[in-house]
Amino acid sequence: MPKNKNATLTEGKFLSLMSASLKGISQVILIENVITGLIILLSLTIYSYYLGLIALISAIIGTLIGKLGGADEDSVNQGLFGYNSVLTGLALTLLLTGANQWIFVLIGAAVAAILTAAMMHFMKNTGIPILTLPFIIVTWFTLLVSYRLEAIQLSASLVPQDLAHWELNTAGKVNWLEGTFTGIGQVFFLDNPYCGALLFIAVFWASWKFGLFAILGNAVALLTSYVLGGEHSLIFMGLYGYNAILTSLAVALVFNQNRKHIATISGISAACLTVPITASVTTWLLPYGLPSLTMPFILSTWIFLGAKKVLPNL
Amino acid sequence: MPKNKNATLTEGKFLSLMSASLKGISQVILIENVITGLIILLSLTIYSYYLGLIALISAIIGTLIGKLGGADEDSVNQGLFGYNSVLTGLALTLLLTGANQWIFVLIGAAVAAILTAAMMHFMKNTGIPILTLPFIIVTWFTLLVSYRLEAIQLSASLVPQDLAHWELNTAGKVNWLEGTFTGIGQVFFLDNPYCGALLFIAVFWASWKFGLFAILGNAVALLTSYVLGGEHSLIFMGLYGYNAILTSLAVALVFNQNRKHIATISGISAACLTVPITASVTTWLLPYGLPSLTMPFILSTWIFLGAKKVLPNL
Amino acid sequence: MPKNKNATLTEGKFLSLMSASLKGISQVILIENVITGLIILLSLTIYSYYLGLIALISAIIGTLIGKLGGADEDSVNQGLFGYNSVLTGLALTLLLTGANQWIFVLIGAAVAAILTAAMMHFMKNTGIPILTLPFIIVTWFTLLVSYRLEAIQLSASLVPQDLAHWELNTAGKVNWLEGTFTGIGQVFFLDNPYCGALLFIAVFWASWKFGLFAILGNAVALLTSYVLGGEHSLIFMGLYGYNAILTSLAVALVFNQNRKHIATISGISAACLTVPITASVTTWLLPYGLPSLTMPFILSTWIFLGAKKVLPNL
Repeated sequence: MPKNKNATLTEGKFLSLMSASLKGISQVILIENVITGLIILLSLTIYSYYLGLIALISAIIGTLIGKLGGADEDSVNQGLFGYNSVLTGLALTLLLTGANQWIFVLIGAAVAAILTAAMMHFMKNTGIPILTLPFIIVTWFTLLVSYRLEAIQLSASLVPQDLAHWELNTAGKVNWLEGTFTGIGQVFFLDNPYCGALLFIAVFWASWKFGLFAILGNAVALLTSYVLGGEHSLIFMGLYGYNAILTSLAVALVFNQNRKHIATISGISAACLTVPITASVTTWLLPYGLPSLTMPFILSTWIFLGAKKVLPNL
Repeated sequence: MPKNKNATLTEGKFLSLMSASLKGISQVILIENVITGLIILLSLTIYSYYLGLIALISAIIGTLIGKLGGADEDSVNQGLFGYNSVLTGLALTLLLTGANQWIFVLIGAAVAAILTAAMMHFMKNTGIPILTLPFIIVTWFTLLVSYRLEAIQLSASLVPQDLAHWELNTAGKVNWLEGTFTGIGQVFFLDNPYCGALLFIAVFWASWKFGLFAILGNAVALLTSYVLGGEHSLIFMGLYGYNAILTSLAVALVFNQNRKHIATISGISAACLTVPITASVTTWLLPYGLPSLTMPFILSTWIFLGAKKVLPNL
Repeated sequence: MPKNKNATLTEGKFLSLMSASLKGISQVILIENVITGLIILLSLTIYSYYLGLIALISAIIGTLIGKLGGADEDSVNQGLFGYNSVLTGLALTLLLTGANQWIFVLIGAAVAAILTAAMMHFMKNTGIPILTLPFIIVTWFTLLVSYRLEAIQLSASLVPQDLAHWELNTAGKVNWLEGTFTGIGQVFFLDNPYCGALLFIAVFWASWKFGLFAILGNAVALLTSYVLGGEHSLIFMGLYGYNAILTSLAVALVFNQNRKHIATISGISAACLTVPITASVTTWLLPYGLPSLTMPFILSTWIFLGAKKVLPNL
């Protein structure tokens, strides 16, 4: 007996929504792949059941806003309305506190999707992707809201500091092996090397090239930040690495216009550049006690993608 | 005996200048209506004779720069070169002090008109209106000038504060009736509910829809800021309301592309969003002691207008 | 006997590189002229042999990146890929300290050229020139890197300060003659009036009009900043003058669309406007201890060039 047509239609819609949402999770690392999204979700859930749940719901919220809002279907199905919501959901969960926190987390995920649409419009003429800027803007603004509205409560880890009294202390344990796996974990705010290893599997599943450049980008950042004298506690927790990984994937592979060969040199240069940019963005934000999130990735990638439009041999 | 032709011409030019200037005053609340402009001017003059005078002169300065500068005539006649000058004139009058203050106020009004032209050019390709951004930029920059040039003196009310030592204190009188009329007053920096009531009349004169959405936007902001635990002293002085009023008018009515029905849901959502944005912008500005002015209105309106270009069903 | 063809070709390429690089040095003051570039290089070398060397190498690095990167040949040959690198090289040399400083200086010069290309792309649609923005961004970011990476060390002159505790002290020697020559020197960070006089010769060599407006812009800034009560120590060291000089050249001559007559009034108004903008930008940067560099020039010039697109009679 044939299935009810309506049921099939609803089932089809549900599957399409889940596929787009899982791709939304994988798009956080610039990959469009359902299985990669599933492995990432597994890694998040192993780290924390609650975090996995928030990531999935946020991805669905973002994707639904794209679908119901009437966005271009291809963009929605590629997960492009999901990844900023996923990141916003994760960041706000970890950086806000209080019982009703989850409400603001999910509202934040929704606002991130709306801001994604707005920024797509504003940057359309440049031909440059918006990357994770909507996530950063929503997260920074929400964190600062806590100073003025009692309902939003900030985690104790974020403390505004006076630049004039800031003392750099680079001392700390050197652990190269741990550093290899923490960078990719930090893309999803995970400071656990085992979850990081699982994320590498997710990336290699999509393509060995992606896996290779993720490792390369992280290695370049580890070395650069170590040689330039960064804080060991930050370096080996992966806090210099995650922006470099994203940047090397973006510049060398994903947004490389020339399809004939991989833009290896630009990719690695751009990954290097994220290290001083990370140091700088962190300093700009010190008086506000805000984390730099993926801003260094955005700045370095935009510089290289924009420059290539004028310097084609770059 | 017929009038002298030249006299008639001059008279015509004078009337056209006055009409455009009064529309410049009404454009502060996104309305193009001479009578609305006149009632607003009356409200300002009741509050303070000097403030009314400054508003009128600023509007004329802005409009004259548009006319003599050779801008598109329609834009000038709609008052689009006046409203940023009016707001700049009012803000600088209230936030600067000293005997020669009026000179800087009027220069500020002139610069706001020139910046209006520049921003119109820079944003032309986006199809998104510049709103009150020129006013905000000129006012913020002028206020900070006072720290370096003795001739410009800041009112004592603006004090830079260290975010690390900031303590939120929401205690304060709850007065819903007053809150109903203060929001619209704060669009023009008036903290007097009677002047606010007169401004509502000005809005209703233009159209009952405008009046309705002004009341709605204000109510939404009062509730949202109260529920989220904002400072009562700010809420009932209308400091969370004025941005919500402007935003609900802009999103639901003025820049609503779909002429068939009012964008009620987006308008109200955008008005809600101004509340956390106000909290956030105020925090960003704390180290500089600057007021957030209409920045939350601009950000929330831009997000919704931009998003609608990509999400037409929003 | 005829020369070897290859040698001639190589020689031709070398001469073209040197010509473009020297024009890169002259483009710092918006002039495209090899001899002007040479005189400026002489002035820099008299001030400090090392500074002259850095300027030349930086210009060559920027130009080479343009040439090898495949940029539009005309732009490269006009020196448009050199001037931001020259300024970055000079600024970082003077504001960083430490033995390996020169490495970061030259990397900074290279990044400035890449950022130049990126910004050219991002601003293409506006029809407004990028001016010295790449230099400012690279320099500000590099200076702040020093707070997080030990290898980059900041000169002791840059101290973050709390705006709440800032006291304005305008006392100081008045020296109009010195002020006449220090402004142009500060374009190249030279606080020596003799080097400044040599720079005036470089400008007059290119055209008497340029020389005239350089003097005019500086005079306007001296007067405005004195009348408005600026700090005498800054005024007569030329720190209010250099932005005014660049702005008056840019607005009155270089980017004046109407070729029939010089835009004298806009040029002088824009030069005036750099004075309050300088005061303001310096205040914005106070908590970070950063210098305002040529940001006031950029802002004032962009406002006037943008406004002219909408107000053609301006």
